Amino acid sequence: MALNLSTAYTGGLLPSTQESLQLTACAQRAHAALETGAGQGAGMRGWLRFPASYPRDPEYRRLLDAAAEIRAGAQVLLVIGIGGSYLGARAVIEAATSRYYNETRQASRGEALTPAIYFTGNTLSESDFADLDRLIEGRDFYINVISKSGKTLETAVAFRHFRAKLEKKYDAAGVNRRIFVTTEPVPEPGKNPGMLLKEALAHGWATFVVPKNMGGRYSVLSAVGLLPIACAGIDTAELLRGAADAQAAYAVSGETLEANPCDHYAALRYYYYKHRHRSVELFATYEPSMVMFGEWYKQLFGESEGKRGRGLFPGSVTFTTDLHSLGQYIQQGRRILFETVLSFREPANAIAVGIDPGNGDGLNYLAGKTLFEINQKAFMATALAHAKGKCPSLVLELPRRDAYNIGWLIYFMERACATSGYMIGVNPFDQDGVEQYKNFMFALLGNADYEEQRAYLRNTYHIDI
Amino acid sequence: MALNLSTAYTGGLLPSTQESLQLTACAQRAHAALETGAGQGAGMRGWLRFPASYPRDPEYRRLLDAAAEIRAGAQVLLVIGIGGSYLGARAVIEAATSRYYNETRQASRGEALTPAIYFTGNTLSESDFADLDRLIEGRDFYINVISKSGKTLETAVAFRHFRAKLEKKYDAAGVNRRIFVTTEPVPEPGKNPGMLLKEALAHGWATFVVPKNMGGRYSVLSAVGLLPIACAGIDTAELLRGAADAQAAYAVSGETLEANPCDHYAALRYYYYKHRHRSVELFATYEPSMVMFGEWYKQLFGESEGKRGRGLFPGSVTFTTDLHSLGQYIQQGRRILFETVLSFREPANAIAVGIDPGNGDGLNYLAGKTLFEINQKAFMATALAHAKGKCPSLVLELPRRDAYNIGWLIYFMERACATSGYMIGVNPFDQDGVEQYKNFMFALLGNADYEEQRAYLRNTYHIDI
Repeated sequence: MALNLSTAYTGGLLPSTQESLQLTACAQRAHAALETGAGQGAGMRGWLRFPASYPRDPEYRRLLDAAAEIRAGAQVLLVIGIGGSYLGARAVIEAATSRYYNETRQASRGEALTPAIYFTGNTLSESDFADLDRLIEGRDFYINVISKSGKTLETAVAFRHFRAKLEKKYDAAGVNRRIFVTTEPVPEPGKNPGMLLKEALAHGWATFVVPKNMGGRYSVLSAVGLLPIACAGIDTAELLRGAADAQAAYAVSGETLEANPCDHYAALRYYYYKHRHRSVELFATYEPSMVMFGEWYKQLFGESEGKRGRGLFPGSVTFTTDLHSLGQYIQQGRRILFETVLSFREPANAIAVGIDPGNGDGLNYLAGKTLFEINQKAFMATALAHAKGKCPSLVLELPRRDAYNIGWLIYFMERACATSGYMIGVNPFDQDGVEQYKNFMFALLGNADYEEQRAYLRNTYHIDI
Repeated sequence: MALNLSTAYTGGLLPSTQESLQLTACAQRAHAALETGAGQGAGMRGWLRFPASYPRDPEYRRLLDAAAEIRAGAQVLLVIGIGGSYLGARAVIEAATSRYYNETRQASRGEALTPAIYFTGNTLSESDFADLDRLIEGRDFYINVISKSGKTLETAVAFRHFRAKLEKKYDAAGVNRRIFVTTEPVPEPGKNPGMLLKEALAHGWATFVVPKNMGGRYSVLSAVGLLPIACAGIDTAELLRGAADAQAAYAVSGETLEANPCDHYAALRYYYYKHRHRSVELFATYEPSMVMFGEWYKQLFGESEGKRGRGLFPGSVTFTTDLHSLGQYIQQGRRILFETVLSFREPANAIAVGIDPGNGDGLNYLAGKTLFEINQKAFMATALAHAKGKCPSLVLELPRRDAYNIGWLIYFMERACATSGYMIGVNPFDQDGVEQYKNFMFALLGNADYEEQRAYLRNTYHIDI
């Protein structure tokens, strides 16, 4: 099994035998609910068996062709989407290449230069639009817009803005072949398509599917994530193979908790939440290129569990960087935290500390040691220090930071999150709470469909709208 | 006063009259302790009156000259430092320009091109070193290394690595004029300088001072932050003027809490922490270029308050982006949160939604509205929605995102943090907890000065070292 879950750095803060029995039973019930579809929101489990089947889907072949076309023609790809429609792709691109992807792509790959990829449609900041206007200036750019319905304001506003830029630059045919849409599937005859799909069909834009049976935060291994990821030159077949192997590995609930690390992880999170009164889980890595993976994790768990007044608040840190920022709090602040640490067993590069005859910095005792070895020691030291401070670490060990293992990790996290949601008694697949700000926003902006919300705001807050 | 603190979006979750009286007394005691030096760690209050005096310090003039020299000669500036020795500079550079500073600097300024600025010395990731090796390849680069003593491992390892790259590229004179060191002041005669200062003096590197009477997280307005900030072409005089005006504005404690917004903010944080059992403060902005400012805020508050089992855990979010990530948790998860929202009253750019005759996306009701207006409505809608969900927002309103106001905000935050630390009964100026991982790390790495820690690790954890 690629991934190992270690409890060696928990400082002994682990379930008692009695607690273990209870946790095992609870995790096994959640496992069964997820597998059989007896749990809440069962219609949104499309991601559960997707990785093994998608490589044979004709759409996947089309997607790889589209990515090749974009790579050949685009200097810049604008990915327009918010939440699950950008986080997964950005997380995987940086994790599998570098946080400096846009600046190092030329030097880092021998073959044809892949396009710079900027993510927009996820903010209303006018400054961010102005920045991107500059970044596409004079460069050949393509658009991949990702939205289930086309109604999401941030995404729709950005698409209108950047589509207009394409229209200034190219003729109609040139525009239409540069727009790739990932949206709801074409509806059955007689039913109406959503706004974005309707536009796509009218203009002949290439379309890919946001599967109906998975929420945005579980969709990175569908076309939602895979098209931008493939445009970055990442091996999506390997990514899917890793996820499919994880799918096979975690499908069966073991006799003991340890037999299924995914269920085991869900159970230990539940233990810290319920039995040890922890409020915050910190996802920690020792690789700056995993920062966006931490953001993806935060959406996955926060949006899945944060409801009915429940759930761990998900945070993320990059070590050793943030040991000089949040390290003090973790070591000695309120005991409301536990950590989930991602560790890779093999380095991606071999850089060693050099020898300096003068030894003015006193580092010669490290000369010849690789940075990887030093970073590993920092991880060990930190986990021991935090455990000593009563902040336990669960450690997820993976062989290396490549597409296969990232695919495995994504599936592990998605499945652990769903199991965990069932354990705390929520539907891990809905997100009703996201609607509240949208309703108020559309009302304040004067959208005609939100008259009721306008009346509410007028009456409750005496806002003059 | 540039900054306004609004409680309009707290949903009525505010102190009672009785609580207000207590909070006022407590905040005034903290204020007095800070001003008079009667509080803990009083020797580390150098930042308190620094902004008004530094512009007249001869070092400041030297610093501006050094920045001009670097801007003229460098295509790349590597800033080597960790924690307070990088977060402030990076936060201000992105806040005052853009999160895409390195990619847009050419287009965004009419004058001479400022150097690309990369921050290193804050990680042990071998991949990050490899990325930076590529990014400096074939480019003229300068180094600003920032470390009080030179002992910090991450910084020392990176400095050795990149200094060796300089030495491969230039002759001794060329190397020495490309290294700028920010470190402890030159000691009195007879006392020994630290490792980094000693090397600097031996090679004739230009040096600037990390003031002895301020911790790293309070040092952004000293040479620690100002040298890289000036290299980015940002008006440091305006930054200091904003901070100095804030220094004058908050020096006196008012009769009422409202009279001093800085004390008021500290008191309201304390109220949510102590009286409303909130564990997490989320710093929120609506500008992606403020992401790193959020990271700076996290170090400032986390490292100042997180001790003796106390303190709010600091998190940060960028809206509307993260409404599609953590929005669900904020709206309906555990009620352990409150928000501090930063809002700007004036836009930095004027981009409006265009008109589309087809109106296929249904957005024509917004045509002609600026993105700034729409983002402001999103802020209002979100704050109302969160307050409705019992997550109150304190709103910090600033006129605009420029150097003057960022300077003001920095001083406001530093002062509020110190006051807040005194209110919860901790020394806001120490950080003993950061040492634990360092001690274990140096022991595991075989540093000869850590024999005692090695013995501890051997005996306690049976680690074979």
